[in-house]
Amino acid sequence: MSIKELFQNHLGAEFDGHVPYPTADLQIQKNKILTDFGEVESSLYFIKSGIIELCVKSYQVLKTVDFFFQGEFVGAYTSFLSQTPSDVQVIALTDCELEVVRYADLQKSYAHSFIANKMGRILNEAAYLRRVKREKNFLTKTAEELYLEMLDSHPQYISQIPVNKIARYLGIHPESLSRIRKKINS
Amino acid sequence: MSIKELFQNHLGAEFDGHVPYPTADLQIQKNKILTDFGEVESSLYFIKSGIIELCVKSYQVLKTVDFFFQGEFVGAYTSFLSQTPSDVQVIALTDCELEVVRYADLQKSYAHSFIANKMGRILNEAAYLRRVKREKNFLTKTAEELYLEMLDSHPQYISQIPVNKIARYLGIHPESLSRIRKKINS
Repeated sequence: MSIKELFQNHLGAEFDGHVPYPTADLQIQKNKILTDFGEVESSLYFIKSGIIELCVKSYQVLKTVDFFFQGEFVGAYTSFLSQTPSDVQVIALTDCELEVVRYADLQKSYAHSFIANKMGRILNEAAYLRRVKREKNFLTKTAEELYLEMLDSHPQYISQIPVNKIARYLGIHPESLSRIRKKINS
Repeated sequence: MSIKELFQNHLGAEFDGHVPYPTADLQIQKNKILTDFGEVESSLYFIKSGIIELCVKSYQVLKTVDFFFQGEFVGAYTSFLSQTPSDVQVIALTDCELEVVRYADLQKSYAHSFIANKMGRILNEAAYLRRVKREKNFLTKTAEELYLEMLDSHPQYISQIPVNKIARYLGIHPESLSRIRKKINS
């Protein structure tokens, strides 16, 4: 999926086929850091293919806080919105094909474009709901329940994420994840 | 402040003086429950005066998760966006003067109004940032730091919130809060 198709899907006949801001294609390799700790996020990245990982530093240890997949926008979004240094790192977990939207271009489109604001409103609502869901999941679900949910929502991708990264995301040891996987497969 | 003034402040000359959806004034008394657990949120409430509290139920105990003040929109926002039963309770901590926006009216305005979508986009960005900040605060700050931040951001309101509610919000015993207050005042 592309940004153009995202607009098409959400807006239907309202969309005249022109995305209201410039976008640039970007191909990156696995392990490429898109945004590092302390940088001010200048762009949002739409994932055409691949997986992007968001990390935080907790007591000098890297902790995975989220994975983003095909068809989603990703970036250090708090930094992007507030134009302050990021406390998350945005990194390619696999080779990725992306479309890039620059902060300044997006703001310009917000000044006059109905569909830019409408999509912005819809995507911000979705980002809010996603954030609440993640917070609630980590407060109320066991690692096994979280892993089952990952399997359920992104079955085609889970095999591409190294086991130690999934374990780190779930906050458990890789050995514990192996036990959960064995239990599920048995 | 009113919703009309909020539009004026954010949009300036772009705003023609007409809020793009109907709003209704509502006066409620202290302890009135606006939205209860299990209800689907039908409205957003703009606070013209007073304080609104958001609670969750954790192991049958009520826990305050947030306070909202004059000039802010409040509601069970996850329930509002997803139109699913709420797991938060929205309750008046003081007598309040509110302006009410109904879900159906807001959706109607989103279909055609540029300024409805622009304000919606701006307010959703702010809601996202607020949520992230709260999550980060509770993960990284001590009760004393959180209390100092409350004093700093809403000095005129803190005296109106009962000590036991502030303590519950900070996740500490009222006696611990008393010690913090004494320390700050000494």
